Amino acid sequence: MKFTLERKDLLPKLETVAMAVAPKTVKPVLAGILFRVSQDGEISLMATDLETSVKTGIKSKHFEGEASAFVVEANLFIEIIRNLYDADIKFSLDTTNLSIDQGKSHFLIPTMSADDYPDFDTISAGSSFKESLTALELMIDRTLFCAARDEFMRNLNGIYWEFDGDFFRLVAADGFRMALAEGKVGTALGENFLLSLKSMKNLHNAMKSAKSDEITISHDGSRVGFSFDDTEIVARVVEADFPDYRKVLPKAFKTRVKVDTKAFLDALRRGSIAARFGSDSIKLELVDGQIRLMSSSQDHGESLDELAVSKDGDDLTIAFNPRFLSEAMKKVDSEETELNFVDAGSALQINPVGVEGYIYIVMPIRLI
Amino acid sequence: MKFTLERKDLLPKLETVAMAVAPKTVKPVLAGILFRVSQDGEISLMATDLETSVKTGIKSKHFEGEASAFVVEANLFIEIIRNLYDADIKFSLDTTNLSIDQGKSHFLIPTMSADDYPDFDTISAGSSFKESLTALELMIDRTLFCAARDEFMRNLNGIYWEFDGDFFRLVAADGFRMALAEGKVGTALGENFLLSLKSMKNLHNAMKSAKSDEITISHDGSRVGFSFDDTEIVARVVEADFPDYRKVLPKAFKTRVKVDTKAFLDALRRGSIAARFGSDSIKLELVDGQIRLMSSSQDHGESLDELAVSKDGDDLTIAFNPRFLSEAMKKVDSEETELNFVDAGSALQINPVGVEGYIYIVMPIRLI
Repeated sequence: MKFTLERKDLLPKLETVAMAVAPKTVKPVLAGILFRVSQDGEISLMATDLETSVKTGIKSKHFEGEASAFVVEANLFIEIIRNLYDADIKFSLDTTNLSIDQGKSHFLIPTMSADDYPDFDTISAGSSFKESLTALELMIDRTLFCAARDEFMRNLNGIYWEFDGDFFRLVAADGFRMALAEGKVGTALGENFLLSLKSMKNLHNAMKSAKSDEITISHDGSRVGFSFDDTEIVARVVEADFPDYRKVLPKAFKTRVKVDTKAFLDALRRGSIAARFGSDSIKLELVDGQIRLMSSSQDHGESLDELAVSKDGDDLTIAFNPRFLSEAMKKVDSEETELNFVDAGSALQINPVGVEGYIYIVMPIRLI
Repeated sequence: MKFTLERKDLLPKLETVAMAVAPKTVKPVLAGILFRVSQDGEISLMATDLETSVKTGIKSKHFEGEASAFVVEANLFIEIIRNLYDADIKFSLDTTNLSIDQGKSHFLIPTMSADDYPDFDTISAGSSFKESLTALELMIDRTLFCAARDEFMRNLNGIYWEFDGDFFRLVAADGFRMALAEGKVGTALGENFLLSLKSMKNLHNAMKSAKSDEITISHDGSRVGFSFDDTEIVARVVEADFPDYRKVLPKAFKTRVKVDTKAFLDALRRGSIAARFGSDSIKLELVDGQIRLMSSSQDHGESLDELAVSKDGDDLTIAFNPRFLSEAMKKVDSEETELNFVDAGSALQINPVGVEGYIYIVMPIRLI
């Protein structure tokens, strides 16, 4: 069986599926990409780590022989394709090996049996809705960084999808901070679900090579499917209860400050230098017309910056982990940001000014 | 004591001395930069790891008070300066702290006593010569990567400087390969010497911010000094015998091949893919009119590339570590490269075509 593909068509498809490839240690065949070539030269590429499955398609330019399927080691195959030129690449399969040829370059790589590869986790029934791919990509980008990194915190190591009438929300939290992004939806999926950080990263990665701006999201109770262009991603729902994030949302703000986003980020960076070398806490003093940002440490002295702001409400002194503040502020793409405070012991709510549907919450550090 | 410096003047000076700063674990004060401010506002900055000392100067824009000296922790100080704007920065020293101010940004950092800081390793006597800084920088760049990384291989963990009439040579070798760069010199230093990899890296780093193209090199038997602009670098000579590199130079070539440098690098990269995943050896087959580059491994198949070349002499099959070949070829900036072979058991000599004074030697891997 022989087929020809153009490098510039193949490479983005490989990058789409590559992230779902499992480490070799899990099971050798899962470190591979499954190629399924149909009688008419249509090729489907698939990878799975048993939690997320990614499938995409490509049409071969020339094809001869029988329909067949094989698995090649992902890293090796991608390394070969990356090192070739943007031109036709010829593939030829014998019983156990795949030949790859372009000009004077020749590669022969072993294949693994497609029979050992798990079936694609297709979603059979359930409800679905369509969403703008760009809008969803942005919602994921704005929340993903807040998910707990620790895989053992199963209920926080992911993104929670909540459906509420015409809206759906993505929520991520790690116990110290929370991000919430809201989108509009025509028909709700009904049931809420939690997807793992790894799944969401695979999805986010695969979305980068999308051409169409429409993504279809479907849910059958235990699996969630995402499809766009020729690509399909299916992620297993994490069976764990995401905490009730509404309890964390602060109410009855007593101090409200509007800052220039970039100036506040710069001031945060400078005011936290001593914190980065020591204490890991930055103090914000809010008085009329300004915020003073301060950190200090025994061995590394004091860092202090001031920023002119417009303030409504009470004066306040409150402390935070400076990294949590700056990571959130970096995701704000509006010129101005509203900082909403209750008191020194309650969460800060960050709202980009003029950007709807995005909230960021960060817990303060207790001042002793 | 107060002084003012412009950020864009100060930052390159800090980067010049920063690499010589020792890890904090060695001795706290050596993790610092020594500032010595004279009565007329001239400031010298110095750092040392006791093997290499780097000193540079900067003139303060405004100065008031008494001449004084202090040490600040390098990482903290540089982080602060990097986070400020390109504008004036005001410094003010009290007994134990340095204040740093720009606009609304204020920092107070502890200082360490200059008395605890070692004196600069000034070269008192000895011979010296002048060299083009750009030329020397290129010679270092072309040899440094071949030095042994292992600090315990004291005689190979550095660059050997050899003086021979009107010429001087930099030689680095790690037991598997060797690089030799040759330069012209007016007056020879007489004695050859070995400088450590760390010293040479510090020197190479400091040279990047040079403005003048002239560098003065002096030697007093146990130390070697390099000076340009306001910067002085003194490195201690390593007391170890660099092996006689002449013994490694191959003689009486039997096969000579001229390759296009870029095409050969590309072919090397492709032909060694199987090697990178397994065997770590690439085989070169030299026949009339072409080189075939091949690697293979049990689990990762075969990679093969071919390159049309002009060849003089015998056919030959010889194997190498592909990384050693490509690292050397990356330093070749001529369009064509000459590969000079003796036989499958002898070193390959690589000469850039049309570039004088640079030779690269790489030992083959025995074919079984």
